[in-house]
Amino acid sequence: MNRKLRMGMIGGGKDAFIGAVHRIAANMDGLIELKAGALSVNPEVAIESGKLIFLDPARTYTDYKTMLEKEAALPEGERLDFITIVTPNFAHFEPAMLALENGFNVVIEKPITFTLEEAKQLKAKVEQTGLSLLLTHTYTGYPMVKQARRMIADGALGKVRKIWVEYPQGWLSKPAEKESAGAAWRTDPKRSGKSGCMGDIGTHAANLAEYISGAKIDQMCADLNIVVEGRGLDDDGAVLLRFDTGATGVLMASQVAAGEENALKIRVYGEKGGLEWAQHEPNTLLVKWLDKPAEIYRAGGNYGGHLSSYAVHNTRTPGGHPEGYLEAFGNLYRNFAQTLQAKINGTTPSPESLDFPGVAEGVRGMAFIDNVVRSSQSTEKWTKFEI
Amino acid sequence: MNRKLRMGMIGGGKDAFIGAVHRIAANMDGLIELKAGALSVNPEVAIESGKLIFLDPARTYTDYKTMLEKEAALPEGERLDFITIVTPNFAHFEPAMLALENGFNVVIEKPITFTLEEAKQLKAKVEQTGLSLLLTHTYTGYPMVKQARRMIADGALGKVRKIWVEYPQGWLSKPAEKESAGAAWRTDPKRSGKSGCMGDIGTHAANLAEYISGAKIDQMCADLNIVVEGRGLDDDGAVLLRFDTGATGVLMASQVAAGEENALKIRVYGEKGGLEWAQHEPNTLLVKWLDKPAEIYRAGGNYGGHLSSYAVHNTRTPGGHPEGYLEAFGNLYRNFAQTLQAKINGTTPSPESLDFPGVAEGVRGMAFIDNVVRSSQSTEKWTKFEI
Amino acid sequence: MNRKLRMGMIGGGKDAFIGAVHRIAANMDGLIELKAGALSVNPEVAIESGKLIFLDPARTYTDYKTMLEKEAALPEGERLDFITIVTPNFAHFEPAMLALENGFNVVIEKPITFTLEEAKQLKAKVEQTGLSLLLTHTYTGYPMVKQARRMIADGALGKVRKIWVEYPQGWLSKPAEKESAGAAWRTDPKRSGKSGCMGDIGTHAANLAEYISGAKIDQMCADLNIVVEGRGLDDDGAVLLRFDTGATGVLMASQVAAGEENALKIRVYGEKGGLEWAQHEPNTLLVKWLDKPAEIYRAGGNYGGHLSSYAVHNTRTPGGHPEGYLEAFGNLYRNFAQTLQAKINGTTPSPESLDFPGVAEGVRGMAFIDNVVRSSQSTEKWTKFEI
Amino acid sequence: MNRKLRMGMIGGGKDAFIGAVHRIAANMDGLIELKAGALSVNPEVAIESGKLIFLDPARTYTDYKTMLEKEAALPEGERLDFITIVTPNFAHFEPAMLALENGFNVVIEKPITFTLEEAKQLKAKVEQTGLSLLLTHTYTGYPMVKQARRMIADGALGKVRKIWVEYPQGWLSKPAEKESAGAAWRTDPKRSGKSGCMGDIGTHAANLAEYISGAKIDQMCADLNIVVEGRGLDDDGAVLLRFDTGATGVLMASQVAAGEENALKIRVYGEKGGLEWAQHEPNTLLVKWLDKPAEIYRAGGNYGGHLSSYAVHNTRTPGGHPEGYLEAFGNLYRNFAQTLQAKINGTTPSPESLDFPGVAEGVRGMAFIDNVVRSSQSTEKWTKFEI
Repeated sequence: MNRKLRMGMIGGGKDAFIGAVHRIAANMDGLIELKAGALSVNPEVAIESGKLIFLDPARTYTDYKTMLEKEAALPEGERLDFITIVTPNFAHFEPAMLALENGFNVVIEKPITFTLEEAKQLKAKVEQTGLSLLLTHTYTGYPMVKQARRMIADGALGKVRKIWVEYPQGWLSKPAEKESAGAAWRTDPKRSGKSGCMGDIGTHAANLAEYISGAKIDQMCADLNIVVEGRGLDDDGAVLLRFDTGATGVLMASQVAAGEENALKIRVYGEKGGLEWAQHEPNTLLVKWLDKPAEIYRAGGNYGGHLSSYAVHNTRTPGGHPEGYLEAFGNLYRNFAQTLQAKINGTTPSPESLDFPGVAEGVRGMAFIDNVVRSSQSTEKWTKFEI
Repeated sequence: MNRKLRMGMIGGGKDAFIGAVHRIAANMDGLIELKAGALSVNPEVAIESGKLIFLDPARTYTDYKTMLEKEAALPEGERLDFITIVTPNFAHFEPAMLALENGFNVVIEKPITFTLEEAKQLKAKVEQTGLSLLLTHTYTGYPMVKQARRMIADGALGKVRKIWVEYPQGWLSKPAEKESAGAAWRTDPKRSGKSGCMGDIGTHAANLAEYISGAKIDQMCADLNIVVEGRGLDDDGAVLLRFDTGATGVLMASQVAAGEENALKIRVYGEKGGLEWAQHEPNTLLVKWLDKPAEIYRAGGNYGGHLSSYAVHNTRTPGGHPEGYLEAFGNLYRNFAQTLQAKINGTTPSPESLDFPGVAEGVRGMAFIDNVVRSSQSTEKWTKFEI
Repeated sequence: MNRKLRMGMIGGGKDAFIGAVHRIAANMDGLIELKAGALSVNPEVAIESGKLIFLDPARTYTDYKTMLEKEAALPEGERLDFITIVTPNFAHFEPAMLALENGFNVVIEKPITFTLEEAKQLKAKVEQTGLSLLLTHTYTGYPMVKQARRMIADGALGKVRKIWVEYPQGWLSKPAEKESAGAAWRTDPKRSGKSGCMGDIGTHAANLAEYISGAKIDQMCADLNIVVEGRGLDDDGAVLLRFDTGATGVLMASQVAAGEENALKIRVYGEKGGLEWAQHEPNTLLVKWLDKPAEIYRAGGNYGGHLSSYAVHNTRTPGGHPEGYLEAFGNLYRNFAQTLQAKINGTTPSPESLDFPGVAEGVRGMAFIDNVVRSSQSTEKWTKFEI
Repeated sequence: MNRKLRMGMIGGGKDAFIGAVHRIAANMDGLIELKAGALSVNPEVAIESGKLIFLDPARTYTDYKTMLEKEAALPEGERLDFITIVTPNFAHFEPAMLALENGFNVVIEKPITFTLEEAKQLKAKVEQTGLSLLLTHTYTGYPMVKQARRMIADGALGKVRKIWVEYPQGWLSKPAEKESAGAAWRTDPKRSGKSGCMGDIGTHAANLAEYISGAKIDQMCADLNIVVEGRGLDDDGAVLLRFDTGATGVLMASQVAAGEENALKIRVYGEKGGLEWAQHEPNTLLVKWLDKPAEIYRAGGNYGGHLSSYAVHNTRTPGGHPEGYLEAFGNLYRNFAQTLQAKINGTTPSPESLDFPGVAEGVRGMAFIDNVVRSSQSTEKWTKFEI
């Protein structure tokens, strides 16, 4: 393929944090160009937002249905390759289904849908159409997260016994929903879904734990809290976990951990040693050994075979040139783009390119929300993870 | 008082790690001298151990009952002031009771006794005799732990909402009980008590959480595990916590976290900010604020009034001359010694000197073990903390 | 302006590290599109490299003179806005002069030219044409570097007394020039210039020290070394510094510090406190105070007025979403682009946009190389910094 | 030997920081008892200080000459084994000579004497008497410093190329000599000697560099500064170094680095990798490799043969129970005591016990002061290190 992929965007108007992040991630590697957008449900905002990012006015839409319909009708040389959906949670499902039905691949923010049932329907549609879907569980895009997953899969730690994952944020320590639009919809059951904190960040933590360890949550015992009075959804919680492999664990997530930024961190312990990765310093993976000095693996490290091909593939710079959140996000887009390019070219994508979160992770994420809320409301100690 | 205090020791023969630590802690500040010992139940070991530490052969005993009896009969100018008990858990209660009955103050390793019932009896005896008892919950001896407690008591963080305390060790990742005497008795229900990991280190974590936050555990939901096959007691666990103040929390303790040393760490979040303290770098207290840059409080820091009198009192050196575990242990002994000196002199000990763990903490610790085992065995989600 | 800026590139063919970095930096924010390139002096490589990045074959050139000539002749609506030059050092001057003479703004890798004399001529040309030039001293693009500069300018530390800057790398610990093209030209006096290590990374360190402190190097005492036998240029060195403000300092740079990645770090001390910034963790600025706890400033921190407008302007994400080297590089491009846009629109660029390194820094950098080599060769202790 | 060693102390009255540190260090391991003291030149202070530490009034002296004379006349079973001298620099030499002449071993604070000439005389006296002298260069007592020295001696890094040592403190940022007795004599040429900062802490840095690397300073180029106006001696400086092995280095020391505590740090780079040790976190030794992940060596680590016998010998606790400055100090005393015990017993001290700084290091330290001051005053770039 001798062209960039063409992207359309639903949501992500000016002032929307995550829309801008998606555009940076998509731009970064020069593989994708944003060609069309329905950036807001407010027509004025939609148009103004398009101008600000130099979108062609002819392809700046004021509603997503029109966009999908018109773009689907364009000739192959102009048609969009995929649609990115960055609306609030309640407005994911319909545009995603319509995009797939119109033959577009899809990128979608997590949580994938508003309900588990929708997620299952979306999964069926993806499978039926054969199209690709990228779910932006950003944190699995970091090279040292890839490295961790591969080391465990390769048995470096022996059998995994313990998984501790934590995700403290402080930004909802006060009733911020009165001032911030992002806080408002995230704490509103009508727009966010069954859970606040667990839906917004607990799902990231659960996804990361399963991705790195290769184990699946099988039982849980959850305690969800509304700490700030009057809030509509949980802003804090902790979950005891049992995995299908016999490992046990703890997941802690809070949006009222005052003074914390976005401190996602995971530790996994096996028979021979442990791994520690923290998002605040994402280029470092600490590998602790039972009977020898701990090692510091670094993204871009010049270690010969010590770094897995997955870590190397997802790194742009040599060691000591820190890459961050936007590059991790960019890795999702890059791998998705490489996969689409291979499909278009009729070639086989590399395993490294195919390693991005998709609709299966989306279904598990929605199930996590359902299960964690059910467990928290139950007087039973352990509840089975059900999909 | 113009003399050092006189200490006798029960247990702590050669090769016993914690006995040597107690002696270093007692020696450090020149306030105490070891004058007598019944260092082992094995008479040969008792005598040889005495020689190695230059103990007067006349006061080197081969059983503790003889020691207590003979020493109690000495004239006041020679008599021991207190007895330190560093035997395995099952052998704490009897010597402690006998020491008190003979008029000796007592220092005792944690957990204070083998059962909660014994702890209660010991508490009654302490109260009846008016003697002093130091329980060596070492970690509360660190100056930055004192600082944390004081900042919370003074309301610096506002109301406390979340308490996360963790204590990973890796030394029992393999069946070490086959090689190490210390591992053997700690994993043996007959010598250690109802719990292994939770008794050995979970109690430290619980004590630290209550000490720093000023809140008491009120309900819990525990999951204890035996990870290494064939082991007699739990070597790992996690507990969801509800405190009497409304705060919630998580306690994680593991002795199979391969690659970890002794990584006790606590985080407490209030309305305005959070505190973080880790035993591996004990001279630093990280104070995170909701709306301004985080601050690094350092032991010995030259901050004028920023450091509480309790932190200053428990520091020997200026900032940047790191003090560690032995000094924290020494602080317990120093405060205990200052309290005994004041009693002997008929003066009032300072509040800073009186701030050492005692029999009340011992009872709570034993209750923690009882409650956490009961909760883990229960199918009920939440169990009330009962004493 | 309702369009992206159009960029042309000289150098930066496939396998050239820094060319790819420039493209990512330029792409990132959607303000610039790469429209033309003369990516290699090898015509085949030039054409293949163009294809790989989806460059229009009609604007993929095999020599830069043709490109500049043809592009200059295009109508205003198609013409390039600026030219990025990413060739080895010896091949900077001529294309830069030609680009300026053809009316193009210029982005150029550092060191700006091969000789100080060329740098001065280039400066004269920039001033004569009124065009803009961006010199990619990447490290001054980090938000926490901006914050440091502003805090010092605002007097937060009082008068600056000490500046310690260090830049250890390990990648030339072996005679890597035999294997790596990048190592080969950097250690070849004919392509790199008078100095190796000091030219390649010492200039970054010197630039950072002057940028943050606001002081200028006035005297120096340098010791440059060739550590790896047979190498043509210095691979290591240290310099004692005296600044025009009376501050003193030390600059250490090495490319044979085995095991180091790219560990640029600076510490500045004033009467009231000190600042510490390290490129490996670029989102943190440690601010140490003489008489109160140190503070941790974080990029994207939610501190109200604590962060300067320059730091905020150069940050894309909220605190805890780490940005890195590519974003710092992107900040240079973004500020340059905003400045060009303002010029095109006839408006005044913001002070924050104008804060990018240019031709004046280029001249000082070349003078640093000249002076440091002269000082190292001198038996005089102190030599005056001359331009 | 079945007794503790008997120590006498000259200097170290109440309020003297370093005297208290020596007592803690000597007490710690139960090998030494303080039996006599001439703690102050002020008789009242001498007597009161003795009381505070429970010294026998009969052996509490008001001048050191009387003490040495009387104690020398005591029978062997009561006589002091060694004398610790903790007076200001100008008052080291005479008591040390007199102690040696009276047959006492000596412990002495650094710098060993007031002048280089005195140091040489003292060395001759030590050699003539066959007695032992411990110079308390504390920082070489840390187990991870021992580990670093051994790894380099064993060739783990290959040939050493670079040594960077730094020692920033901030406590003299203001004219503290007006308030603090310790600051007053340290900045007074009549009591401190030729140099302030370089004598007080630069000597520690130089000693550490030579100890760890095994190389000796051969040439230097120094720049010493008086930063705080009106001060009598240097409070800041930097030195370029050339070692006898061909390695080069930089030594930076400052007491006006506002906000720094006692931040001694050393980095050594060889052909294959580098070592980094910082006194603020003394239980960690970072080992960086050219072509594999860096390793974290920890004091007390459970690594089998990875830790040298010297590191193990100087550690009291298992990994994760941090030891600090007082334990490092205690290691000097413990090794000195073990050496004296062996001499008394007619046995051979272990190599690990003999590894403490003595009179040879004292002479080099005084020569360092002489040389660094001479170099700073010289217009010659490089001056030869002369003894």
